[in-house]
Amino acid sequence: MPPFLHREYHLSSSAVLQDIVIGLSDGLTVPFALAAGLSGAVQSSGLVITAGLAEIVAGSIAMGLGGYLAGRTEVDHYAAELAREHAEVRTVPDTERREVQELLANMGLSPATAAQATHELTQDPEQWVKFMMKYELDLEEPDPKQAPKSAGTIAAAYAVGGLIPLSAYFFTATPQQGLLWSGAITLLCLLVFGFFKSRLTGQPPVPGALKMAATGAAAAGAAYYVAHLVNGVRL
Amino acid sequence: MPPFLHREYHLSSSAVLQDIVIGLSDGLTVPFALAAGLSGAVQSSGLVITAGLAEIVAGSIAMGLGGYLAGRTEVDHYAAELAREHAEVRTVPDTERREVQELLANMGLSPATAAQATHELTQDPEQWVKFMMKYELDLEEPDPKQAPKSAGTIAAAYAVGGLIPLSAYFFTATPQQGLLWSGAITLLCLLVFGFFKSRLTGQPPVPGALKMAATGAAAAGAAYYVAHLVNGVRL
Repeated sequence: MPPFLHREYHLSSSAVLQDIVIGLSDGLTVPFALAAGLSGAVQSSGLVITAGLAEIVAGSIAMGLGGYLAGRTEVDHYAAELAREHAEVRTVPDTERREVQELLANMGLSPATAAQATHELTQDPEQWVKFMMKYELDLEEPDPKQAPKSAGTIAAAYAVGGLIPLSAYFFTATPQQGLLWSGAITLLCLLVFGFFKSRLTGQPPVPGALKMAATGAAAAGAAYYVAHLVNGVRL
Repeated sequence: MPPFLHREYHLSSSAVLQDIVIGLSDGLTVPFALAAGLSGAVQSSGLVITAGLAEIVAGSIAMGLGGYLAGRTEVDHYAAELAREHAEVRTVPDTERREVQELLANMGLSPATAAQATHELTQDPEQWVKFMMKYELDLEEPDPKQAPKSAGTIAAAYAVGGLIPLSAYFFTATPQQGLLWSGAITLLCLLVFGFFKSRLTGQPPVPGALKMAATGAAAAGAAYYVAHLVNGVRL
């Protein structure tokens, strides 16, 4: 595989993984913590399940649709900036040429080499604009198909992540029993997920696993405490 | 203000705004949708408030801690890559020099100018590594203070966003009345927030406002439907 193809492949594969990681991180944490919180306040597993499923649906749609709209915005933003750069290269070429020269000087080129390089880079307007987009504005052309794919992946990962902690309440008689099983299953999943997530991003995996489990435990503990407190006041 | 300071200022101001936007987007949507969903399934406003507060706490901690850990990981990742580049420049300078030359040729420089530029850029190892970090790896040095600041901003914005839809249930007698007021207040807030968010990012504000409100309405509608369905089966 030629190097640039290899790089493209690598980038697109990690885009999907990144979306799965985003969805799972929140899906394993927030519905787990909500269900744990309610377990400290209500007597019916049915209520915990109802609230948990409502949260999973709400979270999946908010994250999925949010991801989709953010992706679409990125595509629009790139198109707008591209049109602006094309116009600037046409209408104020001297200003734009000076920007290229400054950019090259900031990289560390001598004035003479920067001038020669500027001369070469600004011969072809297409190449000139491409250079400005990438090195002045730090924008890569987004793939328009990425947004719907991202949305679906994030939403599905959130739902899968959320159903794991909730499943415990299906098979237990009381919310308290559900919480014990849910906590055990979810902390185990968070440890495994944190381990592989850290491996993927080249971080030390054991501290990564512990951090992920600690985040879930902190969220669940705080939600339990608050629900218990509110319950004592209101119900 | 010198141009680079102006740019730094601009970047750091938009980092805070970005965090507020991230927190508010989810905070206005998910707790709203969860409360709406439960309104279709339970008879007690106290239960909706308990679940809503548990969700806000869980979501704030998950997002805030998640943001903090992601920021810390970014700092570690940058340090690891920096060390690796320094080592490579020392141990395989010819390979690294060829990478600089290829990068410059890909920008559109002639072989002669690319060779001269490579010669200049690789004189000082510090400047050489800086060039590789920015232009080969596309990494900017992250500010280590950014992670805790981000975490706090996102968590606070999520909590503020979540308390707006929930507040309606404090002042109404039944979940059904709460839902009406909550829906009205939240959709208005989503329209206003979507409008200004789009203005900030240079997108058309009216479609942006409508998209934001539609996301919230879709999440709430789906959560209501699912909670109603589950409720019919279980309770």
